[in-house]
Amino acid sequence: MTPSLTLILGGARSGKSTFAEQLAQERFRQPLYLATAECTDPEMAARIAAHRARRGPHWRCVEEPLDLAGALQASDPACDGVLVECLTTWLANVLVKEGEAAVATRRQALLAALASSPRPLILVSNEVGLGIVPEYPLGRQFRDLAGWLNQDLAREAHAVAFLVAGLPMWLKR
Amino acid sequence: MTPSLTLILGGARSGKSTFAEQLAQERFRQPLYLATAECTDPEMAARIAAHRARRGPHWRCVEEPLDLAGALQASDPACDGVLVECLTTWLANVLVKEGEAAVATRRQALLAALASSPRPLILVSNEVGLGIVPEYPLGRQFRDLAGWLNQDLAREAHAVAFLVAGLPMWLKR
Amino acid sequence: MTPSLTLILGGARSGKSTFAEQLAQERFRQPLYLATAECTDPEMAARIAAHRARRGPHWRCVEEPLDLAGALQASDPACDGVLVECLTTWLANVLVKEGEAAVATRRQALLAALASSPRPLILVSNEVGLGIVPEYPLGRQFRDLAGWLNQDLAREAHAVAFLVAGLPMWLKR
Repeated sequence: MTPSLTLILGGARSGKSTFAEQLAQERFRQPLYLATAECTDPEMAARIAAHRARRGPHWRCVEEPLDLAGALQASDPACDGVLVECLTTWLANVLVKEGEAAVATRRQALLAALASSPRPLILVSNEVGLGIVPEYPLGRQFRDLAGWLNQDLAREAHAVAFLVAGLPMWLKR
Repeated sequence: MTPSLTLILGGARSGKSTFAEQLAQERFRQPLYLATAECTDPEMAARIAAHRARRGPHWRCVEEPLDLAGALQASDPACDGVLVECLTTWLANVLVKEGEAAVATRRQALLAALASSPRPLILVSNEVGLGIVPEYPLGRQFRDLAGWLNQDLAREAHAVAFLVAGLPMWLKR
Repeated sequence: MTPSLTLILGGARSGKSTFAEQLAQERFRQPLYLATAECTDPEMAARIAAHRARRGPHWRCVEEPLDLAGALQASDPACDGVLVECLTTWLANVLVKEGEAAVATRRQALLAALASSPRPLILVSNEVGLGIVPEYPLGRQFRDLAGWLNQDLAREAHAVAFLVAGLPMWLKR
């Protein structure tokens, strides 16, 4: 039996992280937090510290901005579940640092790693396609790639929630 | 028993106002319309006049761009329900005119006023976090504050609807 | 009995097209694809070719960027259902090429053509109002017109779905 894959979608400040962490607390005794954001400035450092304090000491934490498939495969076997946050930041990292061709390769590797994960997973990702067309080409390209990635993840997921103002709508469950 | 608090969320031109006014017409005999938008230009004046004509003469109307908590507490006791439109405009007013520190203070006062309201309330607010990351810092700051405000309001509310194309999805009820 | 009108709403890369095509495949033996996008550059040509290949040879295809009402009325009587993609591109075409006054006229004609259609219809349209306020006036104007159009279409439609990551939420059915 494949362990469960849950996808939490939502806009900026929609309560995705808090909701996903609560799910992980309920489901996992020894959760692993797999962070894709890099700590590049004091604002980000403060946000990461606040997240850590909220989660509590029994969480393990790994940071991996690019090789998400590898990080999932290498993750500590003592952990009984993984929360990945967030896929949209990971996509932006790969697109900006490695280019569009790398997105396709890494996405395939990620989808394979998700399908063969020995542990249940909770993924957090941003919905970014509900505004008007971005003015600049990178914005349009990123919006396309993010939308396609979310479709791929939703297809693989056993459960998908879309959050607005902290409240979930379950699209699949 | 606390009077009911209903939050109506949606994007621009999603039919939030019309839906909220219909709810208020159904529920209140003598509704108060508490407007946060200021009449600063002819386009706005025309829009406000059209809203008034649509609502009809039995509505009372108060305008308050900043001190929403005070306006709620001072509202005419003859009114048996209040429609506040909209919270996102109020947030923008406070942020631009008084700064980010004032947002925190006024938000606390607003949440306290909502919790102690002697009358049922219907609040209208915009969901603004579902596009790509804004290019300019004020846009990002406003988007964060608007999302957190909506989460706070949704937590307090007894019922929350998210509107798309004039049609409600009830997230809480 | 009026033939059914189904509206498929969603953001960019939300899976609207694929979902709408699957509905049309299930419902129509001889579907007509009514495209509003013009083939103006190689990227668009490639996308149109990919769409055609996906749909298969039994589809008929008509392109009409502006006179959508006329194209619906003139459509091949041998077809037993029409998929229109997409209304937001049509709106942008009319606004940019003919101006705002033409939008009102063509929208009225479109709504009349939808109401009197002898064939079932599936319409695809973008939700664009869930980001922050656009910086430039044309962006704000387009966002308003697109939101009002979606409300008009949703009011006429017998069924309305809102897609996120390829998954439908039925707002009306």
